[in-house]
Amino acid sequence: MTILVVGSVGLDDLETPLGTRRNVLGGACAYFATAASLYTNVGMVAVVGQDFPQEYVDFFASRNIDLRGLQIAPGKTFRWAGRYEKSMGDAITLDTQLNVFADFHPQIPDDLRDSPFVFLANIDPDLQIEVLQQMRAPRLTALDSMNYWMAHKRASLTRAMSMVDIVLLNESEVRLYAGDENLLAAARTVLDLGPRALVIKRGEHGSLLLVHGDGQELGLFVAPAYPVDPVVDPTGAGDSFAAGLMGYLAHSRDLSLGGLRRAMAHGSVVASFTVQGFGTERLQTLTLSDIEQRYRALCALSYFDRMPDTLLDVLKTTIK
Amino acid sequence: MTILVVGSVGLDDLETPLGTRRNVLGGACAYFATAASLYTNVGMVAVVGQDFPQEYVDFFASRNIDLRGLQIAPGKTFRWAGRYEKSMGDAITLDTQLNVFADFHPQIPDDLRDSPFVFLANIDPDLQIEVLQQMRAPRLTALDSMNYWMAHKRASLTRAMSMVDIVLLNESEVRLYAGDENLLAAARTVLDLGPRALVIKRGEHGSLLLVHGDGQELGLFVAPAYPVDPVVDPTGAGDSFAAGLMGYLAHSRDLSLGGLRRAMAHGSVVASFTVQGFGTERLQTLTLSDIEQRYRALCALSYFDRMPDTLLDVLKTTIK
Repeated sequence: MTILVVGSVGLDDLETPLGTRRNVLGGACAYFATAASLYTNVGMVAVVGQDFPQEYVDFFASRNIDLRGLQIAPGKTFRWAGRYEKSMGDAITLDTQLNVFADFHPQIPDDLRDSPFVFLANIDPDLQIEVLQQMRAPRLTALDSMNYWMAHKRASLTRAMSMVDIVLLNESEVRLYAGDENLLAAARTVLDLGPRALVIKRGEHGSLLLVHGDGQELGLFVAPAYPVDPVVDPTGAGDSFAAGLMGYLAHSRDLSLGGLRRAMAHGSVVASFTVQGFGTERLQTLTLSDIEQRYRALCALSYFDRMPDTLLDVLKTTIK
Repeated sequence: MTILVVGSVGLDDLETPLGTRRNVLGGACAYFATAASLYTNVGMVAVVGQDFPQEYVDFFASRNIDLRGLQIAPGKTFRWAGRYEKSMGDAITLDTQLNVFADFHPQIPDDLRDSPFVFLANIDPDLQIEVLQQMRAPRLTALDSMNYWMAHKRASLTRAMSMVDIVLLNESEVRLYAGDENLLAAARTVLDLGPRALVIKRGEHGSLLLVHGDGQELGLFVAPAYPVDPVVDPTGAGDSFAAGLMGYLAHSRDLSLGGLRRAMAHGSVVASFTVQGFGTERLQTLTLSDIEQRYRALCALSYFDRMPDTLLDVLKTTIK
C-alpha cells in the first residue's frame, strides 16, 4: 500500500567525529522515502531548487518513489549543515538555508490523494494540516515534529497532532510540549489530544509506544534499539525509524497492536543501519533481506521470557 | 542458596524534587541485602558505628539476613548526603563522612566463607579482593564499582574485575575505564580482563548484558527498564538491580544464558520498585509476589515477536 510522505529534501554538510561529507542528499523526506521504498511504493511531496543534482532525482526514480509531487522551483535547494560532538547526542546546527523551502506549499497530485498511508515529516504544522486536508480517507496518518514548532506554532502543532493517528516525537520534545518532566505523564498529555498512538524516540536507548487502552500496562510497549558500534552519523535516524515503522505497517497491512510493536522493532532496525553510514549512504545499498535478518537478531537480542499466554490475544486489537 | 554481600551500610540524607529524608537507612549493602533477602538467605558483611539505630538492625534481623558479619565499631556510622536535580540523573554528593568505614576490613565469619554466591558492592577494590581471598570456591561472584576507584585504584580494580564472574558498571563508567566512547568496544575491554559477563546499567533506559561467546550477537542481551512514573528517589537503584539479578540466580539456581537474561529482567523490576520510594522505604514492604507480578508485566511490555526457534537452545548454555 502506498505511503505518501511530505517533508524536506535538501543538501547537507555533515560533520561527525568519524568524518565529514559535503553536499550530500538530506532532509527528512529523503531519508524516509529512501528507507520506506524498500517496503512499498512511496509518493514524495517536496520541493527542491534548480541546483538539485539530477543524480539524486535519478536515485529516487530508481526506487519505488513516485516523484510527481516533487516540485522543482526557481532558486536554491534547502540546505542544512550540522555537527555532532563526541557523544553523538543532538546535532549542533551550523547553518540552515530554507531557500525554496521558505515558500513551499505541498500540492498532492490527484491520484496520490487516495494514498492509504501518510507520513508528515517534520515541517511547519500548518503545512502538515494542508496535506491532511487534501487527503481522501487515508487509512493511517502519522507526523513527526520538533521543538521549534512547539515554541513558534504551538496551536497549529496541537491541531495537527489531534488530526493524525500516530505522533512521533523525541523524549525531550514530549516533555517540552507537555511542560512536564515526568515522561509518562507528558505522554498522556499528547495522547489526550486524540492520536491513537504516541511513539517516543530515545535514540540509542530505543523507543516507547503508548496507545489508549483499557489496561494501563497494555497501552505501553518498550522497544529496544539495535546496538550499533560505532555510530558513524546519527543524521536521519528518526526519519528512517519512522520509515521502518510505516513501511512495515504498509507492507504487512497489520494495524493490530502486535503489528505496531513489530513495526517499532522495524523502525529500530532501519535506524540502526542509517547511523552506520554518512547521510543516506547505507540506506542506498540496504535491502529488505538485510532488514529482516537484523530484525531476527533484534528478537534474539531482547528475548528473555515468554509472553504470558493470557495477554497474547490483546495484541490482536487493531488501532484503526 | 546464600548470597554473601559486602559493602557500605550507612545513614543517608536524601533530597529529590519530590521531597527530602534525613538519617534514613542507606549504603549499597543495605539496599542489596534488603532486596536480595526476598529471594534467598543473605549474609551481610559490613561495619556500622555505635550510633547506628537498633531499629535498622532489627529490620535486617527480621528478614533472612545473617548479621554475624556486621561489625559494630567504636565511632560514627558512614554517612552520605545527596541531591538529585529535576532530571533525576546522577546524584550530586553534598557530603560524605566515611567514619568507621575508613578503617573497615571485611571479616567473613567462617561458615559464611562457603556461601555459593558473593556480591561485592561498590567499595575499595582492595577490600573486594580481601573478601574473594577469604571465600572457599564460590559458585558465582559479582562486583560493582564506580568512577572514583577507576581514577584512584585502577590496578586494584582491574585485578578485582579479573577475579569475578560478573562485573556491573554504569554506562559512563565502562567508557571511563576503557577510555573509549564507543560503548561496545569499551565493554570488550572489560570482558577481556576475564569476567564471564559484563552488565552495563543505563538507569531508566535499561541495561545491557555482554558475555563471551562464539557468536557476537548471542553474546549480547538488551534488557528493558520497567518504566516508572514518577521516580521518587533514584538512590539505590543500581544496588537493588544487582539484588534482583543475584537474588533470581541464587533462587532459581539457573546459571544458563537464559537464566541470566531473566535475572537481568528481575534486576530491572526490583530497581523500578526501589525508585518509587525514598531510600529503602518501598523495598521494606515489597514481596516476592509483587516482583513476580511486575516481571510478568515487563514481559508483556517488551514482547514484540517470537524468539527464533533455532536460537532458543543457545540460551541453555551455562556461564559457569
